[in-house]
Amino acid sequence: MNVTPVPDLPEIREGDDLAALIDERADLDSADVVCVASTVVSKAEGRAHDLDAFPAGPRATEIADRLAEITGEEKDPRFAQAVLEESTDLLIEAPFLLTETRFGHVGVNAGIDRSNVPGSDILLLPKRPDESARRLHDALSVPVIVTDTCGRPFRHGQRGVAIGKAGLPASHDWRGEHDRDGRELGVTVESIVDELAAAANLVLGEGSGGEPVAVVREFELDGFAGSDELFRDVETDFVRQALREWSYARD
Amino acid sequence: MNVTPVPDLPEIREGDDLAALIDERADLDSADVVCVASTVVSKAEGRAHDLDAFPAGPRATEIADRLAEITGEEKDPRFAQAVLEESTDLLIEAPFLLTETRFGHVGVNAGIDRSNVPGSDILLLPKRPDESARRLHDALSVPVIVTDTCGRPFRHGQRGVAIGKAGLPASHDWRGEHDRDGRELGVTVESIVDELAAAANLVLGEGSGGEPVAVVREFELDGFAGSDELFRDVETDFVRQALREWSYARD
Ligand SMILES: Nc1nc2c(ncn2[C@@H]2O[C@H](COP(=O)(O)OP(=O)(O)O)[C@@H](O)[C@H]2O)c(=O)[nH]1
Ligand SMILES: Nc1nc2c(ncn2[C@@H]2O[C@H](COP(=O)(O)OP(=O)(O)O)[C@@H](O)[C@H]2O)c(=O)[nH]1
Ligand SMILES: [Mn+2]
Ligand SMILES: [Mn+2]
Ligand SMILES: [Mn+2]
Ligand SMILES: [Mn+2]
Repeated sequence: MNVTPVPDLPEIREGDDLAALIDERADLDSADVVCVASTVVSKAEGRAHDLDAFPAGPRATEIADRLAEITGEEKDPRFAQAVLEESTDLLIEAPFLLTETRFGHVGVNAGIDRSNVPGSDILLLPKRPDESARRLHDALSVPVIVTDTCGRPFRHGQRGVAIGKAGLPASHDWRGEHDRDGRELGVTVESIVDELAAAANLVLGEGSGGEPVAVVREFELDGFAGSDELFRDVETDFVRQALREWSYARD
Repeated sequence: MNVTPVPDLPEIREGDDLAALIDERADLDSADVVCVASTVVSKAEGRAHDLDAFPAGPRATEIADRLAEITGEEKDPRFAQAVLEESTDLLIEAPFLLTETRFGHVGVNAGIDRSNVPGSDILLLPKRPDESARRLHDALSVPVIVTDTCGRPFRHGQRGVAIGKAGLPASHDWRGEHDRDGRELGVTVESIVDELAAAANLVLGEGSGGEPVAVVREFELDGFAGSDELFRDVETDFVRQALREWSYARD
């Protein structure tokens, strides 16, 4: 398996034809998978905004005040307002905001970025990353994953994950397959889009590298059953259930 | 970046010199990173056991009885005993066991496997995966990651993660670095060992493929600050704090 960044992409602006920009610079084969950092998808889709676009309501003001008090840092209530508008569920509201976005992804601050956003205050995630991936897939005729970098419980640091995809399943479903001794497998569902996003993130980085797109070559997608769910429902997610009952209390 | 499985590895048995078996089959360069599935590290280290080695105490029996009642499946109390003996903290005890292992990793059933374990009932994770990685690193003179496949909250399915490493940092620490506009970065700590483990897992698979080792080539490890923590402390992990207060209740 080979993972290579697409070279020489320009700064992406609203309305840019991202598929064409990629296609001109990558010699794509039908067996390739294209991984695109959500940041450039968002830019192309006009998801960069100034904070003035999010006048804070009372809930956002309350949240920002509490965060400011807890962290001792200034917190702009308009940022909290943007997070609330992007979210359908608030999992943690202090000492940071962890929410479920409208499309089902759980992330800190609803995945809103303040890095790599020239000329604007914030960059929202794509509105419907599966549809963004679908449009790129239709234009490029290869499987497409839209990625973001985000944190997780239990383990330090952040890593690349898939937030949308088209043209490939979310997971390799090993159910019914067997191990080396003919036993049914313990691991049943391998989230290949997340593993591909993680691999892509290694070559994209988080900084000023200017490489928002990676092509994965020689990863075999054929010959296995796929399943399509990327995000868990709260009903099967005990961590989310636990967070519902929990609230932050300073010692 | 290139990720390739090491070909023709045999079934690994207790006492096997895993480093020599890898070295004979991989033409390693000093810039390569070797990712080894914990399953073969465990086999080499004699971590395969029969359940008879874990006579169940009252706590394990109580846990297994409750799990059997909830799931409607038979649950062997000796398996619960093995999980307890491998663990220092029980995060979820129903409807499945989520624990912290003695070396700090959080996983279902303390990462104990029942697939790919010929001739024994169960395979425990390596006792100290950082030390396992260190021994392989000393013998192979390249950075080494010991991987496992495990699940996570919020997202469906499992993916490869690092449970031990030597010769490279856990994370690329982007603190102090800047984005394309000179702003300080939002993402600060990228868990490269987990991203490398995820990439490796794509080529290893979960089944009967017989490929427990992958070599990562052309991933640039120089020129950045690293940080070394892999596992979060409970003090900074709000999800773990929430789980402490939570318990499963059937509707
Ligand atoms: N060429 C180009 N690269 C960009 C642009 N925006 C971000 N990048 C690069 O894309 C990569 C990922 O950026 P990041 O901010 O981490 O994106 P995210 O993970 O989707 O939030 C980095 O190498 C950035 O330098 C852009 O508009 N044009
Ligand atoms: N050659 C060889 N391959 C093995 C052995 N044990 C497991 N594998 C392979 O290693 C890969 C990963 O196995 P898995 O059970 O998912 O390991 P885990 O993720 O570390 O728990 C699969 O391709 C297995 O077929 C072994 O003893 N010898
Ligand atoms: Mn982002
Ligand atoms: Mn990123
Ligand atoms: Mn395992
Ligand atoms: Mn595995």
